[in-house]
Amino acid sequence: MNYYELQDLDLKHIWHPCSQMKDYETFPPIVIDRGEGVWLYDKQGNRYLDAVSSWWVNLFGHANPRISKAISDQAKKLEHVIFANFTHEPAIHVAAKLVEKTPDGLEKVFFADNGSAAIEVALKMSFQYRAQMGQPEKQRFLTFTNAYHGETLGALSVGSVDLYNKVFTPLLLNVVRAEGPDCFRCPFNEHPDTCDAPCAMFAEEQLENHADTLSAAIIEPLIQIAGGMKMYPPVFLKKLRDLCDKYDVHLIADEIAVGFGRTGTLFACEQAGITPDFLCLSKGITGGYLPLSAVLTRNKIYYAFYDDYGTMKAFLHSHSYSGNPLALRAAQEVLSIFEEEHVLEKNAAKEKRLKQLAHEAFDGLPYVGEYRQTGFVGAIELVADQKSKTPFPAEERIGYQIYKKALKKGILLRPLGNILYFMPPYVISEEEIAWMVETAKQAIVEFFNEKGMGVR
Amino acid sequence: MNYYELQDLDLKHIWHPCSQMKDYETFPPIVIDRGEGVWLYDKQGNRYLDAVSSWWVNLFGHANPRISKAISDQAKKLEHVIFANFTHEPAIHVAAKLVEKTPDGLEKVFFADNGSAAIEVALKMSFQYRAQMGQPEKQRFLTFTNAYHGETLGALSVGSVDLYNKVFTPLLLNVVRAEGPDCFRCPFNEHPDTCDAPCAMFAEEQLENHADTLSAAIIEPLIQIAGGMKMYPPVFLKKLRDLCDKYDVHLIADEIAVGFGRTGTLFACEQAGITPDFLCLSKGITGGYLPLSAVLTRNKIYYAFYDDYGTMKAFLHSHSYSGNPLALRAAQEVLSIFEEEHVLEKNAAKEKRLKQLAHEAFDGLPYVGEYRQTGFVGAIELVADQKSKTPFPAEERIGYQIYKKALKKGILLRPLGNILYFMPPYVISEEEIAWMVETAKQAIVEFFNEKGMGVR
Repeated sequence: MNYYELQDLDLKHIWHPCSQMKDYETFPPIVIDRGEGVWLYDKQGNRYLDAVSSWWVNLFGHANPRISKAISDQAKKLEHVIFANFTHEPAIHVAAKLVEKTPDGLEKVFFADNGSAAIEVALKMSFQYRAQMGQPEKQRFLTFTNAYHGETLGALSVGSVDLYNKVFTPLLLNVVRAEGPDCFRCPFNEHPDTCDAPCAMFAEEQLENHADTLSAAIIEPLIQIAGGMKMYPPVFLKKLRDLCDKYDVHLIADEIAVGFGRTGTLFACEQAGITPDFLCLSKGITGGYLPLSAVLTRNKIYYAFYDDYGTMKAFLHSHSYSGNPLALRAAQEVLSIFEEEHVLEKNAAKEKRLKQLAHEAFDGLPYVGEYRQTGFVGAIELVADQKSKTPFPAEERIGYQIYKKALKKGILLRPLGNILYFMPPYVISEEEIAWMVETAKQAIVEFFNEKGMGVR
Repeated sequence: MNYYELQDLDLKHIWHPCSQMKDYETFPPIVIDRGEGVWLYDKQGNRYLDAVSSWWVNLFGHANPRISKAISDQAKKLEHVIFANFTHEPAIHVAAKLVEKTPDGLEKVFFADNGSAAIEVALKMSFQYRAQMGQPEKQRFLTFTNAYHGETLGALSVGSVDLYNKVFTPLLLNVVRAEGPDCFRCPFNEHPDTCDAPCAMFAEEQLENHADTLSAAIIEPLIQIAGGMKMYPPVFLKKLRDLCDKYDVHLIADEIAVGFGRTGTLFACEQAGITPDFLCLSKGITGGYLPLSAVLTRNKIYYAFYDDYGTMKAFLHSHSYSGNPLALRAAQEVLSIFEEEHVLEKNAAKEKRLKQLAHEAFDGLPYVGEYRQTGFVGAIELVADQKSKTPFPAEERIGYQIYKKALKKGILLRPLGNILYFMPPYVISEEEIAWMVETAKQAIVEFFNEKGMGVR
């Protein structure tokens, strides 16, 4: 079947995720054949630098030889086994290593198979804990504006992005929302490098008002990714941890997107020196190979469910593929690569280079409101007016149009609204970083020039 | 690390799914090293016949050479790529083949990565369809007693098994429940081989009462698996389809557990000659290798979301690993095996053999209320009193105790309450079927003898 026949067959039968399918009429799906390092190759021989790590999952490059070999070996040995009453070495080693590498106090690991499921596990565990500990009135969850935690109804309920939530409102939980940190448009006119997070007062207000009915608060540490790459300083997290302790509310840290080194440390919570009550991990956990998620929690929570069977206190959540050996063997290899290849140290140099080049390229460029970066995540926020920071109207789809232009130049830069971002696989070289930044800049400049909006 | 050290490390860090962890004190997790065909081998050299296909996922045996090779090859080429605006051959071929093999009228395939997510996709699609088609008051879902559809809050809401739901009631949707078919304890005193499903009247009553607020009805075709292996005849499904048409309610068929040949046909809906509006698939779709799910639907539904982007009608659901090439390459191989190895034809003979041997073994055995079988799923319902069909009290955990005894004999027969069942990988031989049935019988007989409940 030739390239265009494959595209036609795709469009005939596949409903793609997070897509208005009518867009595909003028922008048919690109049929990828193979990957290598940061590059994706389509069946026509074009290549694309995967600057978004294929939705933030890839860490060590496409078709990474170490991880591919680990999966191949595991597939020949044990592809899967029921994970109730049974176990296997990859699960045991990954669980032990996660406990070692995550903040102190997280001792137990519950495996699920996607990010949404991890969030649901944390919400359900927190809720059931309250029911079993004589606090049945603590049933609600606190979340933040611009939060995103997944797509299943529980996970969607604690999200705050209208684009995903609004139409489903009648199906969602009645949650408590606090204004989250918004450093680019800080209402206190503070700078994130120096502030003491006065915006934590919004969370405190809600916690104080609703402490008696709140089971847990949930947050994406350091960066609200899907909500628009909103970055905020560790001090906010530290204050939130203290507030949760004060008001007896669990803290759920959703490190699905920010975990595994994206923010510069292995986990974002480290930078605030805090331990959440539940830590949700997914995406990079398998290096971008396979769906897997994990929820880590404290022994205190675990033992609230630990009793004679007849007390009916067990946490009876399960997914068929919980503890899947193939995904866990990939995760085991990922954790080994972090240690053996000194990934975080090497990343630090690359992050610095990216920061320098990106600031040079984007600072002061018309329509760029700000270039911001945390660890290995860099974001360009495009605005209609730089002084007032007025956003472009969503319906103009500026980001989407630049994304299409960038693809023609060989870079996959799928935006979040009018925010373009770099979140590349860690194997990217300094030369590739330079090319990525320069090519993204060209796409932006050319787009506005062609629109007659005159950039240089 | 030796076997016991591995067990200790597991218990130190892993919270297993669907488990009261205190049970593991006297029944520590079995550390599986490898699998081959129907057998799982632990690290001490014991082997276990996987009679439940590791939670109903395995089709063609553990470490199946064809599927393992397909995954190995794919891992070296393209492990994953973002599935919005991008695609790849395994996804295209699987989507086309699914459309070909499922009931007529299902034309579009939406991929997700576990069963719960597939259910949530179907619920959300149905709901959003109503909102966009001028029926915003149709917001609720009809489900059946004993239904089970997954663990995330939306999926859990349409389940009806107290064991999983009850504690979470305040978090769940307010659904409409109809009494489902219960052939073993039929309130109409009918026999499933000859009845005309008078019990469909319960669904009709609810559909009539709630038609104006119902968006969709959801059902597990032919067998309610987790709810206790409740089997019912195709005529019930046919009636339900007609009723859904009559009352303008979508029909969601959850074939996550029963699909891919378990009921004797590739999909259970075939036996009723019906096409649901949404068909949810998972588990066996990858042969038991990897988490993957798919929701198939009609063009009519698809085109209600197909419009200019600015109308905001897109279905913006996604999971990071939607359309994962490794899982889809496994699925592609599974579909090829079905065709090339004439699986359903071969299964028919094995199913017949199982039926004959199981009836010989279990009919009339004390405490066996019934042996029932649909396709390759056979269930033994244990009862305290055969005449009155009185169940054993759940707290006696009869099924659990027999399961532990059976494991010592080398058979993995994890029960659903007091229902033991056979749902083996299709590669099971006739000799293995005979051994499985005989060993299960021995475990049952010995258990009751040791309890002084005198079986033979």
